[in-house]
Amino acid sequence: MDTDEVKKIIDSLDMERKIERINLEDAYQRVLAEDVHALIDLPPFNRASMDGYAVQAQDTFGASEDNPVYLDLIEKIRAGDSPSKEVQKGTCSEVGTGAPLPEGADAVVMVEVTDIQNDKVEIREPVAPGTNWALQGSDIKKGQLLMEKGTLLTAAKIGALSAVGLKEIPVFAQPVVAVISTGNELIKPEEELKYGKLYDINSESISNAVRSCGCKPLSSTIVKDDYNSIKNKIESYKDADVIITSGGTSAGAGDILRQVVEDMGEILVHGISVKPGKPTLIGTLPEDRGNIVLFGLPGYPVSALMIFHGFVAPFLRGLAGLNEVTDKTEIRELKLSRRYHSARGRSHFVLVKIEDDLVHPILKDSGAITALAEVDGYFEVPKNVEIIEEGEEVKVHSLSGL
Amino acid sequence: MDTDEVKKIIDSLDMERKIERINLEDAYQRVLAEDVHALIDLPPFNRASMDGYAVQAQDTFGASEDNPVYLDLIEKIRAGDSPSKEVQKGTCSEVGTGAPLPEGADAVVMVEVTDIQNDKVEIREPVAPGTNWALQGSDIKKGQLLMEKGTLLTAAKIGALSAVGLKEIPVFAQPVVAVISTGNELIKPEEELKYGKLYDINSESISNAVRSCGCKPLSSTIVKDDYNSIKNKIESYKDADVIITSGGTSAGAGDILRQVVEDMGEILVHGISVKPGKPTLIGTLPEDRGNIVLFGLPGYPVSALMIFHGFVAPFLRGLAGLNEVTDKTEIRELKLSRRYHSARGRSHFVLVKIEDDLVHPILKDSGAITALAEVDGYFEVPKNVEIIEEGEEVKVHSLSGL
Repeated sequence: MDTDEVKKIIDSLDMERKIERINLEDAYQRVLAEDVHALIDLPPFNRASMDGYAVQAQDTFGASEDNPVYLDLIEKIRAGDSPSKEVQKGTCSEVGTGAPLPEGADAVVMVEVTDIQNDKVEIREPVAPGTNWALQGSDIKKGQLLMEKGTLLTAAKIGALSAVGLKEIPVFAQPVVAVISTGNELIKPEEELKYGKLYDINSESISNAVRSCGCKPLSSTIVKDDYNSIKNKIESYKDADVIITSGGTSAGAGDILRQVVEDMGEILVHGISVKPGKPTLIGTLPEDRGNIVLFGLPGYPVSALMIFHGFVAPFLRGLAGLNEVTDKTEIRELKLSRRYHSARGRSHFVLVKIEDDLVHPILKDSGAITALAEVDGYFEVPKNVEIIEEGEEVKVHSLSGL
Repeated sequence: MDTDEVKKIIDSLDMERKIERINLEDAYQRVLAEDVHALIDLPPFNRASMDGYAVQAQDTFGASEDNPVYLDLIEKIRAGDSPSKEVQKGTCSEVGTGAPLPEGADAVVMVEVTDIQNDKVEIREPVAPGTNWALQGSDIKKGQLLMEKGTLLTAAKIGALSAVGLKEIPVFAQPVVAVISTGNELIKPEEELKYGKLYDINSESISNAVRSCGCKPLSSTIVKDDYNSIKNKIESYKDADVIITSGGTSAGAGDILRQVVEDMGEILVHGISVKPGKPTLIGTLPEDRGNIVLFGLPGYPVSALMIFHGFVAPFLRGLAGLNEVTDKTEIRELKLSRRYHSARGRSHFVLVKIEDDLVHPILKDSGAITALAEVDGYFEVPKNVEIIEEGEEVKVHSLSGL
C-alpha cells in the first residue's frame, strides 16, 4: 500500500484522548488539555518595576543635576509589603522592584538619579506619569485566555501557569503502549547468548521511542513466534491503548501476526510500499477486546524504528496531544553530502548522519545494528524520485528525540 | 561585562563530571560516559536474512522457471534453532529469517522462487554464493568500538547497546542543581494571594529548564530577601553541584546576594551587558563549602529564563555531558517577520514566536508573563548591530526543550 494511503488510514483512526488533572510540578513536557484562563490579574497590583521612589510626576518636572527637587520620604515599601500611606504633593515613598505602587503616586524615579539625606530625597531627573511601574492587569486580566489547549508545557509555559497560582492543571493522559518483540531467537540482556540466539533490541528501542512521543510504554516482553503465544500476549493487554509488535510479519514467518489480528479484530494495512519496512501491519481490536490499535513492525531494528518514526510516532503524538507542538523543531533542510540513488516505485527513508551541516546517508542494510549507533535522523525520498544530487537540500527528520 | 568574556569565564569553570553505572532500561536521554566496545560479534553467527532455503549455491546455477533444480530438504531451521545437519551437494535446509545458516551452505534461496512437495524443494532461480545471509561479525566484531563516550542515548542508541547484551552502562551522573527564588513578595501556588504578593514563577520554570539540561533539580524553595535567609539557604545545599538563585540582584535590593557570595566564596561576574538580564551574578563556593558554582539570575521570569538559556544551560549541559550532542537540532535560521530595532552597546536576546516559518519578535517588556506563554525561542542580536531588516535571516534558538 502507498505511504499516502497508509497515512490517510492512520489519520482516520478515531481514538479518544483522555484527560487527567496533575500537579503543575509534574507537568513538564505534558500537553495542556483545556484552555487555561488567568485566575487573577497580572500584575495583581500596580507594581514598581524599578528600585526608586514613588512620586507624583508633576513634582519632578524641571528637576536636573543643577537644580534638583527635594521630596519628603514618608514610607519605605519593599517588595511584598503593603503601603500604608498615600503619596501627596511634595512627598515620596521608597519602593523596591516588585513592590506595590502606593496610592497617590503616578511614577517611580529610579534610585540611580537620586540621593537621600535625613528623609529628604534629592531627585535630579524628571519622570513622566506612568514611568517605571506596571498597571494592575496590564499583562493579562483575570479571565483572559492565558494558554491554549494543546500547548506543550515547557519550562517557560509552566512558569506562565504558576504565575496565576495554578496548582493543578488538565493535561492529556499519556497513552499506554504495550511493546512486544516476537521471535524464538530473541533473548533478554541478562540471559546467556547461546548459538542461534540474538539479544532483543526492539523492546528497548521501541519502548524509548514510545516515551519520546509522550506515551507510557508498558514493560516490554518477548514472545515466541507462534499463534497462541502471540494471541495470549495480545489478549493480556486489554488496558493498553496501543500495542506495538515487531517481528513475525515477513512472508515465511507464516504470517502469524496477520492471522492473529484477523481472528481478533480487523486488518487495515498489511504491507507498505516503503524501504525499509515493507512488511508492516496495522490493525484494530474491537471494543470488547480493549479498543486497541495494533502496529506490527518489521523485525529488523532499523526498519522497525524507521516505520515507527514515519507512521507510528505521528499517531502516538496525536494521541498524546503532541502532534502540532513538536513539528516546529523537528525538520531541518540540509544539503546532501553525496549523490543518492534510490529505487523507483517505493518511498525511501534514508538514515543519515549529520556532520558540519551536511547530510551523510548511512549506506548499510536494514539488519545492521551499527547504523543505530551512528544515526542522527533520516530523510524521505518520494517514490517517483530516483536520484538526489550532491548538494541538493533534503528535509532531515531528527531522531534526537527518539 | 561583555557576553563573550562571561562565556569565557563560564567555559573555564573546572567542574568534574561524575560517572555512574545504570541499567540500560533507565538510560533514555542519558549520556554515555565511556566508550563502549562490542561484547560479542554482530551478527553472533552466520544469519539468514530471508525466509528460504540454505543451499550450496553451485547447485542452483542454471536454475530457471522452465528448468528448475530439485534439492532434498534435510532440516527445518527456524530463527532461534541450532542446525544439526550439514548441507551437502544436492540437499538444502529450510531457514527462517534470523536463523543460523547451517554448515555447508553458502547461500539462501528466497522462498518466493521455490516450491516444496514431499521434501523435494523446487528452485527456479540461481543464487550466487554469499546471497541472503550475513557473515558472523560482519556488522561489528567483538571488541570493536560500538559507541563513543559522549553519545546521547536515544531510542536508537539504546537499541544498539542492547544488541550486544549490555545490561549496565556507564553514564554521566546528573548534576544536582538547587533552585532558589528570593523575594519577600513571593508566595507558593497553594497560598492565598494577598495584596503586594506575587506567585513565584522562577521555581517552576528554572527547575524544569534544569531538567531539560539533563540535570536533577532539588525541590525548589522561596527565601526572604535578606542576608541571613539567603546565606543559610545556600549553606544548606552543600551536596549540590550548582545553585541557581533568581531575584535579589538589582541595585536597590541592596546587592544582598553579591554580599553573601563575596563572604562565602568568590564573585566571578557581576553584571552582564545583555538585554534582558543585566543584573546577573556568577560566583563559586570553595571546596569546604561544597565546591559549588552559583548563578544569580535576575528576578523577572523572562530575563531569568533568557540568561539561563544563554549562559547557564550550556554550562549545565556540559556538566551533564550533553554539550555537543544537543546543538545539532537546536538552532534554526529563519526569516524575520518585521524590522527589528535594537539598542547599541548591548547584546539582545529577543524572544520570538515562530509562525509559518517566520520569526515574530515578542515585543513585551521583561516583566510580562504572557511572553512566557507565547515563546517558541529567541535570537541574539550582537551588541554592534542596531537594525535587522524584515526578511533577514536570524538564528533562532529553540526553547522547546525548556
